[in-house]
Amino acid sequence: MSKEKVVLAYSGGLDTSVLVGWLQDKGYEVHCLYVDLGQPCEDRKAIMQKAVDIGAASAEIADVREELCSDFAFPVLQWQAKYESIYLLGTSIARPLISKACLQRAREVGAVAFVHGATGKGNDQCRFQLAAEALDPTVKIIAPWRMKEFRDAFPGRTEMLAYCEEKNIPVKATSSKPYSSDENCLHISYEAGKLEDPEVDGVSVIDFGMTVSPQDAPDKEEFVTIGFESGIPVSLNGASKSPLEMVTELNEIAGRNGVGRIDMIENRYVGMKSRGVYEAPGMTALYTAHLAMEQMTLDRDLTHLRDRMSAEVAGMVYYGM
Amino acid sequence: MSKEKVVLAYSGGLDTSVLVGWLQDKGYEVHCLYVDLGQPCEDRKAIMQKAVDIGAASAEIADVREELCSDFAFPVLQWQAKYESIYLLGTSIARPLISKACLQRAREVGAVAFVHGATGKGNDQCRFQLAAEALDPTVKIIAPWRMKEFRDAFPGRTEMLAYCEEKNIPVKATSSKPYSSDENCLHISYEAGKLEDPEVDGVSVIDFGMTVSPQDAPDKEEFVTIGFESGIPVSLNGASKSPLEMVTELNEIAGRNGVGRIDMIENRYVGMKSRGVYEAPGMTALYTAHLAMEQMTLDRDLTHLRDRMSAEVAGMVYYGM
Amino acid sequence: MSKEKVVLAYSGGLDTSVLVGWLQDKGYEVHCLYVDLGQPCEDRKAIMQKAVDIGAASAEIADVREELCSDFAFPVLQWQAKYESIYLLGTSIARPLISKACLQRAREVGAVAFVHGATGKGNDQCRFQLAAEALDPTVKIIAPWRMKEFRDAFPGRTEMLAYCEEKNIPVKATSSKPYSSDENCLHISYEAGKLEDPEVDGVSVIDFGMTVSPQDAPDKEEFVTIGFESGIPVSLNGASKSPLEMVTELNEIAGRNGVGRIDMIENRYVGMKSRGVYEAPGMTALYTAHLAMEQMTLDRDLTHLRDRMSAEVAGMVYYGM
Amino acid sequence: MSKEKVVLAYSGGLDTSVLVGWLQDKGYEVHCLYVDLGQPCEDRKAIMQKAVDIGAASAEIADVREELCSDFAFPVLQWQAKYESIYLLGTSIARPLISKACLQRAREVGAVAFVHGATGKGNDQCRFQLAAEALDPTVKIIAPWRMKEFRDAFPGRTEMLAYCEEKNIPVKATSSKPYSSDENCLHISYEAGKLEDPEVDGVSVIDFGMTVSPQDAPDKEEFVTIGFESGIPVSLNGASKSPLEMVTELNEIAGRNGVGRIDMIENRYVGMKSRGVYEAPGMTALYTAHLAMEQMTLDRDLTHLRDRMSAEVAGMVYYGM
Repeated sequence: MSKEKVVLAYSGGLDTSVLVGWLQDKGYEVHCLYVDLGQPCEDRKAIMQKAVDIGAASAEIADVREELCSDFAFPVLQWQAKYESIYLLGTSIARPLISKACLQRAREVGAVAFVHGATGKGNDQCRFQLAAEALDPTVKIIAPWRMKEFRDAFPGRTEMLAYCEEKNIPVKATSSKPYSSDENCLHISYEAGKLEDPEVDGVSVIDFGMTVSPQDAPDKEEFVTIGFESGIPVSLNGASKSPLEMVTELNEIAGRNGVGRIDMIENRYVGMKSRGVYEAPGMTALYTAHLAMEQMTLDRDLTHLRDRMSAEVAGMVYYGM
Repeated sequence: MSKEKVVLAYSGGLDTSVLVGWLQDKGYEVHCLYVDLGQPCEDRKAIMQKAVDIGAASAEIADVREELCSDFAFPVLQWQAKYESIYLLGTSIARPLISKACLQRAREVGAVAFVHGATGKGNDQCRFQLAAEALDPTVKIIAPWRMKEFRDAFPGRTEMLAYCEEKNIPVKATSSKPYSSDENCLHISYEAGKLEDPEVDGVSVIDFGMTVSPQDAPDKEEFVTIGFESGIPVSLNGASKSPLEMVTELNEIAGRNGVGRIDMIENRYVGMKSRGVYEAPGMTALYTAHLAMEQMTLDRDLTHLRDRMSAEVAGMVYYGM
Repeated sequence: MSKEKVVLAYSGGLDTSVLVGWLQDKGYEVHCLYVDLGQPCEDRKAIMQKAVDIGAASAEIADVREELCSDFAFPVLQWQAKYESIYLLGTSIARPLISKACLQRAREVGAVAFVHGATGKGNDQCRFQLAAEALDPTVKIIAPWRMKEFRDAFPGRTEMLAYCEEKNIPVKATSSKPYSSDENCLHISYEAGKLEDPEVDGVSVIDFGMTVSPQDAPDKEEFVTIGFESGIPVSLNGASKSPLEMVTELNEIAGRNGVGRIDMIENRYVGMKSRGVYEAPGMTALYTAHLAMEQMTLDRDLTHLRDRMSAEVAGMVYYGM
Repeated sequence: MSKEKVVLAYSGGLDTSVLVGWLQDKGYEVHCLYVDLGQPCEDRKAIMQKAVDIGAASAEIADVREELCSDFAFPVLQWQAKYESIYLLGTSIARPLISKACLQRAREVGAVAFVHGATGKGNDQCRFQLAAEALDPTVKIIAPWRMKEFRDAFPGRTEMLAYCEEKNIPVKATSSKPYSSDENCLHISYEAGKLEDPEVDGVSVIDFGMTVSPQDAPDKEEFVTIGFESGIPVSLNGASKSPLEMVTELNEIAGRNGVGRIDMIENRYVGMKSRGVYEAPGMTALYTAHLAMEQMTLDRDLTHLRDRMSAEVAGMVYYGM
C-alpha cells in the first residue's frame, strides 16, 4: 500500500529540515515546497537539493513574489493599513500566500495534508490555518509544534541537532544571532532573543539587511517620482514597473536613504505582547506616496471612511482572517 | 448713552488692527484681547501699545500657554489623534481656547459680542463659533469677513493699507513672505501663496522656524527619556516639567534633530482642499513616546478601540466641535 | 440635422409628463424609460401609451424587480444596514438602479443625456447623479428642477397643470393625498404634506398600502421558515423562491401581521431634517431572520465588525455613494 | 486571633447560601450583602434572616435601585447601546454596581476580600472582577466556582442540597423551572435548560414576569408622553419621575402592551455562544422614545458618530469594562 502524501512548507532551516525527517518517520511521503517570497541571500538550489538528500519525494519552488506584491501588499497599501498604527504587515501578508501555494501543490501531488512549522505561541499558526481553511474547509493541517508528541521529542535545539546528526541531515553552521528574523521582498522582521528585553534599544542591536540608519544616510535628498493608476503604483521615475520591480527598486532607493525602520511592542492574536523590529524601506515609501496621492484625489468623506477602516483592515490582516 | 462694548481677538496684525478701527467706526467700544498661545518672536508690549494708540478701550494679554498644552494638546495626544493620518492639529486645538479666553474677557468688561478676524473660507470661523456657542449658546459673534458690508469696504490689502493710513494705524513693514503662517508653542503652520500650487515642493519653499531639515541635523542620535504619569508626560531626562516646559524643551531638542515636518493637502470643514505645511517638533516627539508607552501598558482590545477612535477624535477637533 | 436624444426616467406622473413636453420644447427627441421596481397598482400600459401620445420617440419598460431584490436589497440586508438605526433604505437602494437602467437605454438609443425629475432639496438628485457618474464619468445629466429656467417656468402645480392643458398632456385626476409617497416592491415611503408637522402622529395619518396595524393584526402567531444559503434567503416554508418572490410573499405574510412600519425624522444628505413614514413588511421580516441566522453562524469578532460597519454602509447607501 | 472578614454578594439562593457555610468552614467571618437591584417578588426580610441563621456575622441590604437606573441604565440608553444589535444589557449593567456596593461594604467592615458566586463559564465573573479591580486595583476576589477545591466539593446540585441538610441551611422548595432567570428592575433574563436547544421557541417556553405577549395585548393603542431634559427622561405623562419611578411605571405600561421581548443567541466574552431570552418593557420604551427625541435634536454628524459608537459602547458594557 502506498504511503500518504503531505506537502510541507519548507524553508531549508533547522526546523523544517527536521520535519522532513520526522514526517517520514511517521510514515508520510513528504513533498517539500519552498515558497519563494523573495527571501534574500539564500542558495535556493542547495536548499532544494538538501530536501531531496534527506528523503523528500519532491522539492519544488513556487515563485510567488509578483503575486505577493500585487495581490497582497498592494491591496493592504491601498487601505493604508498599519497594525497598531505603525507595522506594515510584511510577514502577516505573506502567510496566507504560503498556505495558498501549498494547497495548490497538495492538489497536484494528491496530498492528504498541509504541514507547517509554525510554533504554538505565535501569530503564524493562526494565519496558516485560517487561510488554509478559508481556501478549503476540509483541509487537513499538521502543525507539529502544536502536537505534544513532537514537542516532547524536541524540547530544544540540542535535540534537533542530535536528530539531524543521527539522520544525516546537514545543518548549516550559522553564526548564531542574538535574535531571529523573517525576510521577504517586502521587509525583514526581527524578534525574540535580546529583543525580548524592552530596555534594549532594538535599533542598535539589529544588523539590518535592507536599510542604513538615518545618521548614515547621505545628507542630500534623493527625489523619486511614483506614478499611480487606479490607486496602484505602476511607474518609477517615468519607467513602467511590475509590482515586484517597484518594491525591489524602492527598497534599494529608500534603504540607502535611511527610510523604513520601526521598533515596537505589538499585541499578538494569541494574547501576548511581542517585541518586533521591522525594516520595510520600499513599502514605507509607497505608503507615503500613496497617502500623498490620496490627498489629491479622494474627497473628504471617503478619506475619513478610509481612516476609520484602516485599523479594522490591519487587524484582520494581522490576525490572518 | 454709553457705547456697546465688544471683545476683539486681537493679534496686532493688519487685519485685526483694521478691525479695531472699523469697530469704532460702527460705534462700539473695543476691548482688545491678545491670547498668548506662545507665538514666538513677537513684541507683545508694542502690540498692546498699538491697540491703545488706535483707540482700544483696553488691551490685555491672556497667557493661556500652559492651558493650551495641558487641557488641549495633551488630551488630543492621548487619543493619538492626527487629522487625515498625519496632521497634529496644532492650530485646530488653539481656536476654541481663544474663544474661551475672549468670552471670559467679555464677561469681565460686560461686552455684548465677541469679534474675530477669521475669513469666510477657512476652518477657523467654524472653530471660533462652535466653541463660543458651546460655552455660551446666547453669545453674539461678529465675524466681519462674513459680512458683505466689510468685504465690500476691504476687497483687498490695498484698501486695508489705505484705511490704516487714513486712521493713523501703524503698519509694520513686513517683508512679504510667499505664504502665510500661524504660530503657537505647539507648532507653526504654513499655507496659501506659493503653497497653493501642488507642484511646488512645500518643504523647500518654507523658511522653517522651529526645525532644521533631516539633512542638516547632526549625524548622531540624541537620546531623551520622557516620563509619563497616567498617560501624561511629566518629566524630561529625569527632571519634572510643566506641560508648557515639556513642549517647549522638546521643540528645541526635536527641532535641532530634524523631527516633525509634514507637507500635506487636507480637506477643510467647509468643503475645499487646502495645502498645509506644518512643523511640530516637540509634539511629534511626544506622539512617538506616547505610542511606545501605550505599547507597554494598554491591552489589545483597548489599543484597537483607541486605533478606531483616533480618526473620529481628530475629525471633531479639526472641525472645532 | 437630427435632434439630440435624451433618456428620461419616466413615471407617468405629473412631473415627468411635463418633462416629456418641456424636453421636446427644448428641441430634444425624448425616449421614456419606465423603470419597473414593482410599483404596485399602476396601469403600466396606459402609462406607456401616454408617453407616446405626448410625443415621446419611444416608451419602454425595464423590469428590474429581480435585480432590485438580488443585487441591491439583499447585499444591504447582509450588512444589516439601517439608516439612522431604523430605516431599511428601500428608496435609497432603488435610485442607483434607475440610473443604471437609464444609462443602458441611453447607450441603446444613442442619447446624449439622462434626464430625471428629482427636486433640488432631496436625496434623490444626489443618488441619481452619483450613480450615473460612477457608471459613466462622462455622462451628461439634465436635472430640470436644478435649473433656474425650469423652476421659473413651473413655480407650482398650477403652472404644470396649465402647461398640460395647453399641450394636451392628460392628467390623471388624483384625489389629492395629504402627503406624497414612493412605492416599490420593497417598501412604501410617505413624506411631506401633513407629515412635516412633527406633532402629527404619522402612523394615524397614513393610508398604508402594504401593512395592517398591529392592533388590526390577528391575535395569533403565524410561523414562517426562511432558508438561507451563503447568507441569502432562498426558500420560504420549504419552497425555493427567487429574490423577488421571497420579498413579495413575505410582504403579504408580514403585512397582514402588522410587521414593518416606522415613523421617523431623518437627516438628509443635503443637510436638512425630513420626516418619513415607511412600511417594509417583507424586508423587516428578512432583517430579523437574517440576524437570527447570523447569531448561529458568525463568530464574535466578525459579528462585532459587522455591527461597527452597518452604520457606515447604511450612510453610503442612503447618500447614494 | 480574630477571623479574617469577607463580604459576600448574597442573593439568598442555593449557591450563595452554600457559600455562607463554606466560607465559614474556610475560617472566614462572613458579611452578607444583598444588593437590591429591584429583584421582584422576593421576601427580603426572610432572606436576610436566613443569612444570620446560617452564621453570617452581618446581613445587610444595599438599595441601589435608583443608582442602577440613573448612573448605569440611563447613560447606556443615551448611547442607544444594544449588544449585538438587540440586547439592552440589563444584566451586564448591574454587575459592576454589585461590585461597587460590596467593595463599599468591605471598607465598612474591614473585609479582606470580596466573594461572588458567578460560574466560570459566564460573563458575570469577568464583570464582577473587572469592576472590582477598576475600583480598587489591590482588591482580593474570591470566586469559588473558579477554584478546583470548591468545584470538586460541589460537582452538582445534589451535593449542594446534601451540604445544606448537613449544615441546617434552609432550602426554599422551588418548583424547578426548565431554565434559569435573573431579575432586576430593568429586565428579566432567561437562559440555560431547555433554552440551550436552538430548535426550541424561546418565547413559548418562558413564563414571562413583566410582559404579556403582543397577541394578548389590548388591540388599542395606549399613548404615553415622556419628557427629556439634557437627554435624560424626567417626566411621564406630565408628572416628574425619578429614574426608578420612570423605569418601573414604564415596565407596567409597556409590559401590559406586549412591548420588550427578545429571543437571541449571543457571543459571550469568554468565547462561547449562549441563548438568552429577555424582557425589558420599560427600557425598550425608553430606547424608542430617546431615539425619537434624538431625531429632533441631534445634527447629522453627531447622529452618525453615535451610530458608529453604539456597538463599541455595548461591547464594553457587556464585557464589563
